[in-house]
Parts: sequence; structure tokens; C-alpha cells
Amino acid sequence: MSTQPRLVAVRQNVLKQNDVLARSLRRRFEAAGVYVISLVSSPGAGKTTLLEQTLMRLRAGGGRVAALVGDLATENDAARLARSQAPVKQIITGTVCHLDAAMVERSLDDWELKDLDCLFIENVGNMVCPSSYDLGENLRIVLMSVTEGEDKPLKYPTIFNTADVALLTKMDLATAVEFDLTEARDSIQSVRPGMQVLELSAKTGLGMDSYLRFLEKQIGSRAAVVGASLGLS
Amino acid sequence: MSTQPRLVAVRQNVLKQNDVLARSLRRRFEAAGVYVISLVSSPGAGKTTLLEQTLMRLRAGGGRVAALVGDLATENDAARLARSQAPVKQIITGTVCHLDAAMVERSLDDWELKDLDCLFIENVGNMVCPSSYDLGENLRIVLMSVTEGEDKPLKYPTIFNTADVALLTKMDLATAVEFDLTEARDSIQSVRPGMQVLELSAKTGLGMDSYLRFLEKQIGSRAAVVGASLGLS
Repeated sequence: MSTQPRLVAVRQNVLKQNDVLARSLRRRFEAAGVYVISLVSSPGAGKTTLLEQTLMRLRAGGGRVAALVGDLATENDAARLARSQAPVKQIITGTVCHLDAAMVERSLDDWELKDLDCLFIENVGNMVCPSSYDLGENLRIVLMSVTEGEDKPLKYPTIFNTADVALLTKMDLATAVEFDLTEARDSIQSVRPGMQVLELSAKTGLGMDSYLRFLEKQIGSRAAVVGASLGLS
Repeated sequence: MSTQPRLVAVRQNVLKQNDVLARSLRRRFEAAGVYVISLVSSPGAGKTTLLEQTLMRLRAGGGRVAALVGDLATENDAARLARSQAPVKQIITGTVCHLDAAMVERSLDDWELKDLDCLFIENVGNMVCPSSYDLGENLRIVLMSVTEGEDKPLKYPTIFNTADVALLTKMDLATAVEFDLTEARDSIQSVRPGMQVLELSAKTGLGMDSYLRFLEKQIGSRAAVVGASLGLS
């Protein structure tokens, strides 16, 4: 069909504009000394539950954290995350299947980034569309729940290829769904050799300590780098 | 940004072209007397497991059934469905987050539609993108697994609004995930008042008989309509 090449051209143009904006966001985050982590997954893989606990525990340890959360409709997730007492904003995308850098930038309007150590961005639940949109984040985490099946990395390779770390969530259900951990890990490694994989259950707490230590190390190493670049260390 | 209106215009054009093609597919299906059912859901909600059992049981009852199955990558689902002995074809979409009418049409090339009673189309796992694309189907079923959370209809209203029936899947896990059936049904009814909802577990067999009776009734009523229009009844 004649429109296909035109659509591709327009899409590439949009992606290019997004990349330019994402680069400027990344510089802004770096200048403010804030480490930015985004979460991507299928709907219902447990992003919000995990993020609520993450915000609470990092805050309890003295971390200055905040979150942006994307959904097509409802402010439900922002309301859930607000229970952590961290600053939270909902981004409503309407019919758009992913966040983009412009949505993130608009949401930051009245926030003082330099007062934050870490900003979390929870994307729309979608294993395809968020792959192509850089949000200026430092670390992208892809979540995959054990209930989704071991082959999802093979079916949605791009989202794993554009993420930095994979989390296997809802591990408390692994036995009930006869989850094959070796097969799941093999699937991930076959699309993204060497990818770090963490297992956890936000419900039972399994693996949460390791996951938080991992996050704190990332955030801390970034703070050290920022400190060094400012001549503070 | 200046590209946004242009992107919207191009997308509307693509959707319009898809609608034209879907209408012609629908006429073709009707002329051949084949009833077409599509399945949409998040990744890992259980479309393929359910479809495999559906094909096997309809075949065992003498039904002439076939399936098209969409994924970004891998032929895994076609291989699983082929165990039912029904004709199956995989559609690989690459980076595209949904099937469209052109992909369906191309896949039908060498199939004799008049030899079929029912064709199933399993869409890419995605709660957003498939909403807008008519595939010429007679019935669109949206699946939602109990592990995804009760509020998904509120967050992804369009996919429920464009479907005809909702299936709550993996009911065998309802207790383990403390699934609130009333809340889930309320969520569905609030975005789509009057929508029919069936509950099932393809793993334990719970609700499968009712679901198959429902399907057979749909397929049969269509056959009666086609028969009447051909002057056969």
C-alpha cells in the first residue's frame, strides 16, 4: 500500500525528535544529579506493586525519590504510589501505547530535580511500543512475571534488547504455574546474552533485598560519578 | 511539535485503508460461510493454550477449524497450535504491535475458506494497538488473566470497548492471587455495560464446557444465517 513508506518516514522522524529531546533530558537529569530508572512490562506484571515498595524502602533509607507513571486512562497507579509518601505524577496517554520524552519533560515542569536522588518512570503496560522511545533514563528495567510464560523474551526480543536488566516477578506463583526458571533464563540470554536477571516476589519479599541493593548500587555509583564531575570527590 | 498532526493524519489514513480491506475480508468470509473469531489480550494471558484446546475440541466435534496466529517473532505458537491437527499459520509482524487486515488477507492466499466452519485469529499480545484494527472478524474476544489485576479494563478501556465478549482466564490461580471477581466484573461493566463475561481455566478445564457451548452457538447461528441467505433453510 502506498501509505506504508510514508508512515515509516513519519515514524522515523518522530523517533528522531524523541531521541533529541531524550538526550537533552538526560543532560538535565545528569546536571541535577538525579538517577532515572524506567520500568517496562506487559500489563499486570507487577510494576506498580514493586514500585510502591521500592519507593517506600528507598525513602525509609533516606533516599529522595519520586515517580512518574503512565497509563492510557485512570489515576489509579498514582494513587497507589502516593501511599509511599513520595512525590508522584500520573501521565495519561489516551490512546498512545507508550510514554515519550515530551510527556516526561512536560511532567517535570514544577519539580525541583536537584532535590531528588532518583526518579522512577513507570511506562504503559506494553511489551512492544515502549522499546523505541528513549526517555532519557539511566537504567531501563524490563519486568516479566512467571505467569506470562518462559518464551516471552523470544516473542518480544526488542523490549529485552533495549532494557538493561530483567526482573522475573511474582516468583511466589512459580510452582503454581509450573514456571521453568532455566528455560526463562535461557530465553533471555538467547536474545540478550549476558543480561543481568533478578528474581523476586514483591508479595512475599523474596529477592527484594538483593533487588534494592542492586538499585542502591546503581544510584550510588551515579552519585559518585556526578560528585566526581563536580569536583566533590 | 509540528509532526504530531501529520502523524495523526497518516495514521487515520492507514486505519481507513485497513477498514476498507477489513470490510472486503468480511464479505469474503461471509460468502465462504466461515465464522471468524479473533482473540486479543496482554502477552501471556493464555490465548494460545486456550486456542489449542478450542481447536482440538471443536475438531473432535466435527468442526472444520483453522487458525492464524500473530507474533513479533518466532513460530512457537503455530507449532503449539499445530498439535491440534488443525491448519495453522504464523504471521510474523517484526516490530509491529498488532495484526492488520492486509496481513490476514495475505495469509489466506492458499486456503480454501469454504472448507472451513470457523477461523480463529490470535492477535499479537498487546492491550492497546490491536483495538483500532478491524480484521474482518465476526466476534472479538478479549482475554484477561486473573494474575493481571482487576483494574485492567479501566486502564485499557478501548480494547474492551472494541471486543464483543470478555474471558477471565487462569481462574485456577484466582485464590493464589487473591483475585476479586466482583471488582473485575464491575471494572468490565463500567467500561462496557452489558458485556458478556465468561470465566475459565484452560488448565483445570473449569468453565471450558460453557465457553465451548457459547462458541458453538455463535458459529452455528452464523451457519444458519448463511444457510438462510443461500435459501438452504
